[in-house]
Amino acid sequence: MREQFDIPEGVIYLDGNSLGAPPKHVAERVQEVVKHQWGNRLIRSWSEGWWEAPQRIGDRIGRLIGAAPGQVVVGDSTSVNVYKALMGAVKGTERTEIVCDESTFPTDGYIAQSVGELTGLKVRAARPSSLDLTEDTAVVLLNHVDYRTGALHDMKALTEQAHDVGTQVVWDLCHSAGVYPTQLDEIGVDYAVGCTYKFLNGGPGSPAFIYVPKHKQATFENPLSGWNGHRAPFAMEASYEPDPGIARARVGTPDILSMLALDAALDVWDGVDMKAHWARGMTLTSLFRSYIEQMTSLEVITPNTLPRGHQISVRCENPAGVMAELIARGVIGDHRPPDILRFGIAPLYIGEQEVKRAAEILAEIVN
Amino acid sequence: MREQFDIPEGVIYLDGNSLGAPPKHVAERVQEVVKHQWGNRLIRSWSEGWWEAPQRIGDRIGRLIGAAPGQVVVGDSTSVNVYKALMGAVKGTERTEIVCDESTFPTDGYIAQSVGELTGLKVRAARPSSLDLTEDTAVVLLNHVDYRTGALHDMKALTEQAHDVGTQVVWDLCHSAGVYPTQLDEIGVDYAVGCTYKFLNGGPGSPAFIYVPKHKQATFENPLSGWNGHRAPFAMEASYEPDPGIARARVGTPDILSMLALDAALDVWDGVDMKAHWARGMTLTSLFRSYIEQMTSLEVITPNTLPRGHQISVRCENPAGVMAELIARGVIGDHRPPDILRFGIAPLYIGEQEVKRAAEILAEIVN
Repeated sequence: MREQFDIPEGVIYLDGNSLGAPPKHVAERVQEVVKHQWGNRLIRSWSEGWWEAPQRIGDRIGRLIGAAPGQVVVGDSTSVNVYKALMGAVKGTERTEIVCDESTFPTDGYIAQSVGELTGLKVRAARPSSLDLTEDTAVVLLNHVDYRTGALHDMKALTEQAHDVGTQVVWDLCHSAGVYPTQLDEIGVDYAVGCTYKFLNGGPGSPAFIYVPKHKQATFENPLSGWNGHRAPFAMEASYEPDPGIARARVGTPDILSMLALDAALDVWDGVDMKAHWARGMTLTSLFRSYIEQMTSLEVITPNTLPRGHQISVRCENPAGVMAELIARGVIGDHRPPDILRFGIAPLYIGEQEVKRAAEILAEIVN
Repeated sequence: MREQFDIPEGVIYLDGNSLGAPPKHVAERVQEVVKHQWGNRLIRSWSEGWWEAPQRIGDRIGRLIGAAPGQVVVGDSTSVNVYKALMGAVKGTERTEIVCDESTFPTDGYIAQSVGELTGLKVRAARPSSLDLTEDTAVVLLNHVDYRTGALHDMKALTEQAHDVGTQVVWDLCHSAGVYPTQLDEIGVDYAVGCTYKFLNGGPGSPAFIYVPKHKQATFENPLSGWNGHRAPFAMEASYEPDPGIARARVGTPDILSMLALDAALDVWDGVDMKAHWARGMTLTSLFRSYIEQMTSLEVITPNTLPRGHQISVRCENPAGVMAELIARGVIGDHRPPDILRFGIAPLYIGEQEVKRAAEILAEIVN
């Protein structure tokens, strides 16, 4: 698969958990969109594939996260989709609290805070291992993979635990889409959101997605009731009536260039078996861990158990300085406060040689 | 200027009020973003210009709408920005109603409806000519240019009328940005939003903008409190503290490909004097009107007074059929229910010859 990606000579790119590398053919496809679809077909392209793109591309992502067609739509940012999902989940509830993963990527918590303020629900932070959900909990917002440590939470067990007390679950798949063979439909998840620019390689700030299962679509109320979610958008009616299906999760005019770059990037996933793909990542992350442990005295904080994400995080003094030196030597990862070096291992373009060489260079720097 | 645009041979493009034509150099710039910034610099590009792009490009748009730097930010769709502005405007109010332009483009009304339901305020539709604002009106949402007729409302008078009773105003500039020499700062507008894919030629679904003037920024509360609006986004703090400036209107990770295509497209505006540009559009729309009135018996519904937008709308039976025939003959406009043909006249790439030829072809069809 490596041959399908455009990665500069001499770079070992271990930051696919933050911004995935571009598949080679994306540049050409984007050019075709700008020159032909926009430049040549102009407004006509809206009825030649653009309008339905959010649902069509949503279905392509659906295959990778265990969602049957008609339940995933692409558009807006993850933050905006978290807002839609949480507002939809608490609409009309008499319950009094929202629970949010204590170790969440911050934006989810910020959005939960805003939803709490707007709706009068209390927001409580809790570790996924001790959520203490009760019949007061309207919804729990969980990250599938912890962005700092790479720990992957048990979606099935946690969803069941929530449903046992009638609590809805919103799963954030930002760090597991393109990593793990998630089974949203089978598990019966209420809502899921995620970004597409990490392991899915959709491009910088490519649009996010939201999953609303069939059985919840009729009652899901999108607070961002923009015209793209209307039952008949071009009738230009004065009153909002939502589309009966997943299109009700749409808002405004979709960002076609970013969206069709994502569409092109998804081609590399055609035919990828998610179970085998995830297992390949486990092999590579295990290998990277063992090299780091052999060659350095750094503490790997990513759990050494299964399942986990395609990531190895290491505790390190002066992480910004060490990462700057790594990047200067061609190993690109990132760092997160207070003391974490993060390395994403994307099996589509990272192999045994790269993880060994990256560990050697890290050892040269820290030893 | 026409030479700077990529418009297919044999096409008279009168739909720049719906999707602007691409400036020629945009394709190359987008290629550079995909291949070099994304493909070569990878994650490093976030600190090499991407992160600040929403404010930098916002300032470029600010020049065209009379907003000094630091008050406009680009991102999200118009619908999402209408939501931010309305929710910001009604936050903490004791007033009881939102007034919305009766002839608004539907999405603004749909969003107002949602804001009303969430906050308990009543939404009342009213014509801009008889708004009947009172001390019960928290905010009025107005379209600068009527998307159907091309009428351009008097922003100064209507803003003063609102302020006289302590009502805030949100102006939707979708059909006036890139048209009229709007003076947001001078008039003292409270909030403004607009899209960038019409007369600004930013590309299909290119990100929208929001204007929050300096003096309102400290108190503006963005309901979509995503991490990009945080005072210190990379500190990854648990609690949301908004940026003190316009960045607080940001939400999630911006769609860089769409945004930098817009950035490139804005180059054609460098040096354009907005007053002269608007006047040129008045000349062309007057000419088009007179040709239509000479050659056909169709009723032009765009007011024959100043100011107005860069648009001529015509009442016509079977508008879909007539527009299909126009497009088949190389004249691209659009139609809106129930019986309106719309023609956008973008002076950057439309001249006297095109409006004459377009009127002739329209006459051949309808006569």
